Amino acid sequence: MLKKYERLSEQVTIRNILRARSAISPYIKPTGLIYYPELSRIIGCEAFVKHENHLPTGSFKIRGALNFFHAAPHEDVANGVLVATRGNHGLAMAWAGQWFNTPCTVVVPENNNPEINRIIESFGAELIVHGRDFYEAQFYCDELVAAAGYYYVEQGNEPEILNGMGTMGLEIFEDLPDVDVIVCPIGGGSGCASLLRVAQAVSPQVEIVGVEAERAPAFARSLEEGRWVVLDQADTVADGLAARSVFQLPYVIMKDHVKDVVLLTEEEILQGITLALGATHNLAEGAGAASLAAAVKIKDRLAGKKVVLVMSGGNLDREHLERALAGS
Amino acid sequence: MLKKYERLSEQVTIRNILRARSAISPYIKPTGLIYYPELSRIIGCEAFVKHENHLPTGSFKIRGALNFFHAAPHEDVANGVLVATRGNHGLAMAWAGQWFNTPCTVVVPENNNPEINRIIESFGAELIVHGRDFYEAQFYCDELVAAAGYYYVEQGNEPEILNGMGTMGLEIFEDLPDVDVIVCPIGGGSGCASLLRVAQAVSPQVEIVGVEAERAPAFARSLEEGRWVVLDQADTVADGLAARSVFQLPYVIMKDHVKDVVLLTEEEILQGITLALGATHNLAEGAGAASLAAAVKIKDRLAGKKVVLVMSGGNLDREHLERALAGS
Repeated sequence: MLKKYERLSEQVTIRNILRARSAISPYIKPTGLIYYPELSRIIGCEAFVKHENHLPTGSFKIRGALNFFHAAPHEDVANGVLVATRGNHGLAMAWAGQWFNTPCTVVVPENNNPEINRIIESFGAELIVHGRDFYEAQFYCDELVAAAGYYYVEQGNEPEILNGMGTMGLEIFEDLPDVDVIVCPIGGGSGCASLLRVAQAVSPQVEIVGVEAERAPAFARSLEEGRWVVLDQADTVADGLAARSVFQLPYVIMKDHVKDVVLLTEEEILQGITLALGATHNLAEGAGAASLAAAVKIKDRLAGKKVVLVMSGGNLDREHLERALAGS
Repeated sequence: MLKKYERLSEQVTIRNILRARSAISPYIKPTGLIYYPELSRIIGCEAFVKHENHLPTGSFKIRGALNFFHAAPHEDVANGVLVATRGNHGLAMAWAGQWFNTPCTVVVPENNNPEINRIIESFGAELIVHGRDFYEAQFYCDELVAAAGYYYVEQGNEPEILNGMGTMGLEIFEDLPDVDVIVCPIGGGSGCASLLRVAQAVSPQVEIVGVEAERAPAFARSLEEGRWVVLDQADTVADGLAARSVFQLPYVIMKDHVKDVVLLTEEEILQGITLALGATHNLAEGAGAASLAAAVKIKDRLAGKKVVLVMSGGNLDREHLERALAGS
């Protein structure tokens, strides 16, 4: 069943990631890799944050979306593309679709953040609210594809989305060639898998540490069981980590190489948000702050090392911000 | 008395700003100019934010500090430099000094934010706590210069600091050549003056709107009275706006060209902080959020225009963040 994805994984390469950079560079700037002394003091390492939260639409997903539209054959997407999302993927696809004059239909679940919905619409996308959770929204996409002939973009299983995301890794190694450890959140797994591809080509000795929520340990469980696992539920304050499974493509890329996953409690995720505020003066969403929280949790292992913490996104809503502040 | 500064102002030129860009580009990346649909909806214009809060040390000051060290004759700074600061200028000089192996002594007033003090020290600077406010700290610098022969960097009166800051303006015009209005906070005035120099050279019809606090209206008062005014006090929640006067060099650059200053109440500044959080997902300090608050205040005049809002810095402490959230 994973054979198809093993073949697709051969399209996620350093060469294609370099090509992706030239494709996306007219639209977005490289993000900062900033050293934070206060964070370094707290963790006991040299702590650098990779600021994917500084990108348009507030997350790393924009890299993948831009490269997808750049690479997609015109006839595939001429009738528009369809995506299911809780937020960042949909924001990125709607934003990038505008540059490529490609209409974008975005399916969100019923309980989705209305602020995010409004922004998706303001980027010119058609919004469809359907299903009780992300997975029901996803299933609805399959129905729409059958009925209307859209191109359905299953984000984590599109090689060109991963190649676009891999540009983050290029920037990390250019700015800090002697990095020892990179800590990266794992939701659907595409960000971490694309980062791994760059590390394998550029600096294979670098350690990649994944981060998941205790309440959504899809990849950690997959590693334990030696097979691709779909959880019954994945319910965490960090939307970007609330995945019942990683996508198959990142799974086949990561399974033999990312062996280390830190699992965070809900409280630790919220503490990560306040740590990001205090020590870096950045608003990070739960998944974006997860790398900081994980680094605190494994600080003994990071002592004295050069560590990059991927702040994957900044789209935190008011309610969760206040909850994080109240808890600390 | 301003003659000296009129001569100095001739050194703040588009040519020197272009040169500054090549000088600082090895150290920092251009910042994003991001369009925010939600902010645009609220203000009723096309609202773009220039994200100076995304720079290392969290503010635009780093541009000026880097260019200062690059341009300074070795013999002037070999014994180290001395600066007085409440925060961002000191952070920037300490950070930039490290790249140029120049020791930096930073004088802060007694009531200064201890978190900021700790970060300044962690960048290798010597910290001296002296004086009840910024102005007493500044006077103490004069004593130290007389006694110890430091080079005292009076930030807003150094042409090469302004030339460095001007690189922000270059980036704005490259990303949005047809901008109609740029809204920029005025504390010491160096950021706004350097922006004006770029606009004069590139796009003179662009309107530059300054923003000050009602409780620190030094430049607005100077315009009214037609002379360089020093206020008796300047006490606002926005540290970056709490200046009893603008520096003389930006004053002579701005006085005949920046005619429009929006004055904000304390409440409006705090509302700007929550607007930045909600509509852009960025943590902005008071001065950094002031351009957003000002745009809301003059929204009728901005209707339908392409407007750049300079988010000058993001170094907001926990206390002020909670105060802003509680108020809205």
